[in-house]
Amino acid sequence: MHGIYVKGVLSVTGSERARQVELLSRGAAELISPAELEAKLSAADREGRPLRVKLGADPTAPDIHLGHAVVIRKLRQFQDLGHEVYFVIGDFTGRIGDPSGRSATRPQLDQAAIAANARTYEQQIYKMLDPDRTKLVFNSQWLAGLDFAGVIRLAAKWTVARMLERDDFARRFREQQPIGVHEFLYPLAQAYDSVALRIDVEVGGTDQTYNFILTRELQRDMGLSPQVVLTMPLLEGLDGTEKMSKSLGNYIGIAEAPEQMYGKTMSLPDALLERYLTLTTEVPQGEVASWAEGMRTGRLNPRDVKMRLAREIVTLYHGAGAASAAEAGFVRVFSERLQPEDMAEVILGPGPLPLAKLLVMTGLAASASEARRMVSQGGVKVDGVRAAAPMEAVTPTHGMVIQIGRRKWARVRLER
Amino acid sequence: MHGIYVKGVLSVTGSERARQVELLSRGAAELISPAELEAKLSAADREGRPLRVKLGADPTAPDIHLGHAVVIRKLRQFQDLGHEVYFVIGDFTGRIGDPSGRSATRPQLDQAAIAANARTYEQQIYKMLDPDRTKLVFNSQWLAGLDFAGVIRLAAKWTVARMLERDDFARRFREQQPIGVHEFLYPLAQAYDSVALRIDVEVGGTDQTYNFILTRELQRDMGLSPQVVLTMPLLEGLDGTEKMSKSLGNYIGIAEAPEQMYGKTMSLPDALLERYLTLTTEVPQGEVASWAEGMRTGRLNPRDVKMRLAREIVTLYHGAGAASAAEAGFVRVFSERLQPEDMAEVILGPGPLPLAKLLVMTGLAASASEARRMVSQGGVKVDGVRAAAPMEAVTPTHGMVIQIGRRKWARVRLER
Repeated sequence: MHGIYVKGVLSVTGSERARQVELLSRGAAELISPAELEAKLSAADREGRPLRVKLGADPTAPDIHLGHAVVIRKLRQFQDLGHEVYFVIGDFTGRIGDPSGRSATRPQLDQAAIAANARTYEQQIYKMLDPDRTKLVFNSQWLAGLDFAGVIRLAAKWTVARMLERDDFARRFREQQPIGVHEFLYPLAQAYDSVALRIDVEVGGTDQTYNFILTRELQRDMGLSPQVVLTMPLLEGLDGTEKMSKSLGNYIGIAEAPEQMYGKTMSLPDALLERYLTLTTEVPQGEVASWAEGMRTGRLNPRDVKMRLAREIVTLYHGAGAASAAEAGFVRVFSERLQPEDMAEVILGPGPLPLAKLLVMTGLAASASEARRMVSQGGVKVDGVRAAAPMEAVTPTHGMVIQIGRRKWARVRLER
Repeated sequence: MHGIYVKGVLSVTGSERARQVELLSRGAAELISPAELEAKLSAADREGRPLRVKLGADPTAPDIHLGHAVVIRKLRQFQDLGHEVYFVIGDFTGRIGDPSGRSATRPQLDQAAIAANARTYEQQIYKMLDPDRTKLVFNSQWLAGLDFAGVIRLAAKWTVARMLERDDFARRFREQQPIGVHEFLYPLAQAYDSVALRIDVEVGGTDQTYNFILTRELQRDMGLSPQVVLTMPLLEGLDGTEKMSKSLGNYIGIAEAPEQMYGKTMSLPDALLERYLTLTTEVPQGEVASWAEGMRTGRLNPRDVKMRLAREIVTLYHGAGAASAAEAGFVRVFSERLQPEDMAEVILGPGPLPLAKLLVMTGLAASASEARRMVSQGGVKVDGVRAAAPMEAVTPTHGMVIQIGRRKWARVRLER
């Protein structure tokens, strides 16, 4: 690092600041704006204080996957330059649930569930973030105390027409699907988080752009300096088309075991390799470009590039040792041809089901009783792990390999 | 009255209840629904309790005119049957003002101004309402304490699309005029007033129909019995076309002096006589119909009917003696032809202006100096009252008569 450390922030020269802006905007979908970010960096430097960088998190889904990690690793870059991350858990709306009763995906959470989710977040984010430069906060802290008058003042900052410009609202309005009036309050509440925390920079996925810009205007309207907005691309899941998400089952969780992470990565379509290398690893851009070129010209086998990607990903979350072991395991199975390259694919939904039933559905067993017998004889493996109980619930994931003995194989493809 | 008095409410027979429904719906624009009102009356009777009847009032405009009186006199009918009126002063929104800063008509009011307005209301409404059966309440009492979670739960009861069905929102949305998100919260706050007060019947002008129906649905959604809605027609002002309102200057205030009330009534267009007799007096419907018929056939001179209307109105607010005196004064001036029947009309805006300037604008004086001289000589009268100071501010009202000596006359017509 160039520069000297002053009160926790690197004091840097102008040209070094330009380099920082370049670094921070690497891989970003949008930065509003480079000039504002440079000015914020400069002000922080002058005042000897870190920038306050925010990420908002859903209180209901504490499983962090590589899609989230794209954003969280960007936060780490800010921390490495001495800045402070506010990891905001949106427990306020979580506690209310969906008062319209329409959405099953927003159940009401109690205090204990929210605390448990927060602990799960902590266990995961500190694989990427520096705990000393991370503040985990709950937005109920400032939102629960807002009274009706405060809500009215907040809501007066935005118009109905502009709210209806947001993609999802526009679509639902056009298609005459109901939008609850309360839903117009959520983007405002999220914006108020930035006001309450005096945020300098907000980072998130491109699906948050509207909310972030609303926040900027709200801050301006209140006489505050508008936050810099940095959005990251949304990562496609293992199926290669849909956004990575837990509910679609097309994800790699950052808390998954090294072998599982490695194996799932190996099930990626070749077309996504360059994008994954760019967004999910630390491999320098030049190298990524040269590999992509190598695959285009046929100089490189995509399978080798994919193995490199898998090793990079496992290394990030489990270290180089675990990555080597996972790779060795994969190579052993693969080179020994224990796992055939072209095996039957079975299309399944994402929900869990008993192993015996799964075996029948995949056609590997003729009946439930045959399936139970084969499991109890120890001949059944799921992703290379021997199954012990025929009624054990198995949640199909994309690329999951099910095997009976040495000859019967099937690979799961998740239906969309 | 038929029936006996039990705990303050008349205990009545079924046929008497049907008569009450007929009486209460007399003159109404809409009653939702007669059957529900009858059921509420029946329940109140059974439980030996009065119905809770609500009127919402604007905290910024405490001048009550005949247009408001149409609604307030309907409340009196409920009181005469033993029921209880909740006169709700909307001080909550008054205290917030217009946070968007767009509307000059909704300034922020402080505690003292609201208390003063409330006293002014009391002085006026008890000319019509029974103080023993009237509760004057302020909605900040329950709205100020509502927290953000409560607001979200409330807002979840209604959709954006349905909100945009309200006439004024629909028009502004269509014409691309901004609607603040906070404006969607006001009808919900108003509905919450009815919930907090456990209202049985809400009475108001037809411009409130949307809000009242929203309230019914909100109550139903909360498992409460929906309020009966009774809307009264909006009274046209002295100009004969626009709704009576203070800001248009086309009103007769119920606190105005008898002579002024009488004179303003005499300036009404003949076409409004039947409507005014129906909505602003106690003259039985049969009699009103017969007079209307008399005017159509030429049997009655509209001027005589108008004098009867004027006497009825003054009697309601100042008693029979004051009405007779006002009439005598009018007849004297009129029969002595001091005021010519066809005098020049001058079109003016509603804002106040110095008397001397008014005289020049009406053409009664050639210059400001001539106007000043004529006032100081005591030759100028406004509505029959001698003017003392040339720089005194005069607020033009519709039908106001300005006179210099015995020969120069002008009548004000307010521009719309």
